[in-house]
Amino acid sequence: MDSIEKLSSIFEKFPGIGPRQAGRFVQFLLRSSQRTRAELAAAIESLSAAVHQCLECMRYHSGKRAICSICENLERDSTLLAVVANDTDLLAIERSGTYRGKYFVFGGTVSLASEVLSGLRLRELIAYVPKLAKGGLKEIILAFPANPEGDATSIRLKEELESLAKGHSLRVTSLGRGLSTGSEIEYADPDTIKSALDSRR
Amino acid sequence: MDSIEKLSSIFEKFPGIGPRQAGRFVQFLLRSSQRTRAELAAAIESLSAAVHQCLECMRYHSGKRAICSICENLERDSTLLAVVANDTDLLAIERSGTYRGKYFVFGGTVSLASEVLSGLRLRELIAYVPKLAKGGLKEIILAFPANPEGDATSIRLKEELESLAKGHSLRVTSLGRGLSTGSEIEYADPDTIKSALDSRR
Amino acid sequence: MDSIEKLSSIFEKFPGIGPRQAGRFVQFLLRSSQRTRAELAAAIESLSAAVHQCLECMRYHSGKRAICSICENLERDSTLLAVVANDTDLLAIERSGTYRGKYFVFGGTVSLASEVLSGLRLRELIAYVPKLAKGGLKEIILAFPANPEGDATSIRLKEELESLAKGHSLRVTSLGRGLSTGSEIEYADPDTIKSALDSRR
Amino acid sequence: MDSIEKLSSIFEKFPGIGPRQAGRFVQFLLRSSQRTRAELAAAIESLSAAVHQCLECMRYHSGKRAICSICENLERDSTLLAVVANDTDLLAIERSGTYRGKYFVFGGTVSLASEVLSGLRLRELIAYVPKLAKGGLKEIILAFPANPEGDATSIRLKEELESLAKGHSLRVTSLGRGLSTGSEIEYADPDTIKSALDSRR
Repeated sequence: MDSIEKLSSIFEKFPGIGPRQAGRFVQFLLRSSQRTRAELAAAIESLSAAVHQCLECMRYHSGKRAICSICENLERDSTLLAVVANDTDLLAIERSGTYRGKYFVFGGTVSLASEVLSGLRLRELIAYVPKLAKGGLKEIILAFPANPEGDATSIRLKEELESLAKGHSLRVTSLGRGLSTGSEIEYADPDTIKSALDSRR
Repeated sequence: MDSIEKLSSIFEKFPGIGPRQAGRFVQFLLRSSQRTRAELAAAIESLSAAVHQCLECMRYHSGKRAICSICENLERDSTLLAVVANDTDLLAIERSGTYRGKYFVFGGTVSLASEVLSGLRLRELIAYVPKLAKGGLKEIILAFPANPEGDATSIRLKEELESLAKGHSLRVTSLGRGLSTGSEIEYADPDTIKSALDSRR
Repeated sequence: MDSIEKLSSIFEKFPGIGPRQAGRFVQFLLRSSQRTRAELAAAIESLSAAVHQCLECMRYHSGKRAICSICENLERDSTLLAVVANDTDLLAIERSGTYRGKYFVFGGTVSLASEVLSGLRLRELIAYVPKLAKGGLKEIILAFPANPEGDATSIRLKEELESLAKGHSLRVTSLGRGLSTGSEIEYADPDTIKSALDSRR
Repeated sequence: MDSIEKLSSIFEKFPGIGPRQAGRFVQFLLRSSQRTRAELAAAIESLSAAVHQCLECMRYHSGKRAICSICENLERDSTLLAVVANDTDLLAIERSGTYRGKYFVFGGTVSLASEVLSGLRLRELIAYVPKLAKGGLKEIILAFPANPEGDATSIRLKEELESLAKGHSLRVTSLGRGLSTGSEIEYADPDTIKSALDSRR
């Protein structure tokens, strides 16, 4: 396999990228200056050095400290902990500007085939909750996607966290379901109509 | 304007149909047998005779009686009344199999320009609620779409129904908002994330 | 089946219309005035009376005469005859403003399952060509879509017209294949690239 | 700007990649192993060393020799030269398996604003043609996309190559236009219908 094919095959592993677009990326880099390529290679390599996982929420950040800027922010609401699947979901919630609590990145969702939590950060979460409980934690919000994997993860996590939550008098909640902004009732699926009726208020 | 153009111009007024598809409809009818065309024309004309509005929920139905099959069904939950924008939304909720209460078809949503309820069935609704209240009504569910028009309609209706609801001890609720089934958090808009957090449970 | 369902089931047979949109059409008509419905029914019924097939090109038209306005136009180029699948394709070519010859509407394309021409207007075409030949016809252009059905129709028609064409010294041609306007080479399928290379000039 | 933002901003320059997908690429790399990142960085850097432009057709390749595998293949048809905009178009034609001649990568198309050929490989093409002419070249195929930029490039190139072509008795052709495979006549634009009629055969 030559350099072009090698690089193309790596780009094909990128999320959402097929062979044709991987090929276009390679052509783009071939047409770029050597300096641009060197910069990109350096930026990729520097990730390992400059980026580290926050010791608390487990997300990747590139601050100088072991704790990320959200976790070290004393003004965040320490009564709330949102458990999210990954960094991208954390950033989406943060961008929405509607949540001021703490986060924990669980590292993914369970696979429906196995429903096991292996490879995910259950141990780390169980270690983190008591620390937050001392700081006044009242509620764990399971903020997983509204799909079968997300649902299965929430169900498994509720079981795993049950005694811990009871011990520290914590509520364990999930994100509300219903009509998302812009939804027409006519096109809503039965499940969403059911959720919207159940969560009416 | 000849017959072809005349018919095409009527089809263009159908929801979601542009000039090109209107033209295809006409071509389709031209290729159909005269019997098919006669059947279609008869079916359209018979709507006026065979179909009437239910005197209670105001939806169109073609039963023999003045009251539609849902309204005359004594097994429906008479503590709940869902107010919907139109027949199509009523049918969508009915198809979801998750609601067993009564309905009222409001006839549309307010226009954002005017925010007036004229042309909609406010008077009919206000006349209908006390009748249901005698039968045990406990809650009016405003089941409008999750868009600005739907929201404005809910807000206006809440105001209009306020004294009536107080007088009969009725709750007035709206459909829950949140992640609709299948939603990824990453792609959810800020408003939906906010709703999903607000309605967590 | 009641009137609403009956009408909905007819609309479902319209090209490109599924059950949901058929239902919306019915709702639209229910909300329309009785006068609108009467107009639509009348327009549909009047098709049978007001519209007739041109005795020459076989397309539907609503002129007063037996011959359509294109066929009776003496300024059309009578050396060219374009055979098209249906009225819609005829209108598309006419709209393009790039063809001034005569037309014949063949009534469809062969089905790939059978490859028979039954139900199509082969007999009528074979009767029409000699008439045009007397008027100076030089070329029959088979203007079928660039898909397998269109190709099969062209192949079958070429065979059927062979002796007739020889007898009257007529060329039988097909529409050119190649890159359509706006095509990128990168996204063109192999077949189109082959055609574009073959028809280079 | 920290490492994450830096890398994200480079990915945003990739063709077809916006800020959101650039962010996902970074998250993907953060979750990847350090070894994967090192491999990717190495593959990008090695492009500069391992890849070079073919001295004849000007495309990028990673063979050991100065001439690419197509150009050094003695079985290619040396009577034909296809001039293409870029490597991607060359690969698309090659994939189609319908062309066995030579190639020359022109480096792009003219911009409609200027219509100048600066930055493109006119000088190199003019130097290359006489070499091929000695080897039996008969035809130069301008294989540019079927859009205004491609058309303008073909027109400009025809002018530039005119005396050279005359001197060596070369035809200069362009790719054929017409219906591309799968096209319906009904949806074809007027320009394509015109081309399809013009190039009928």
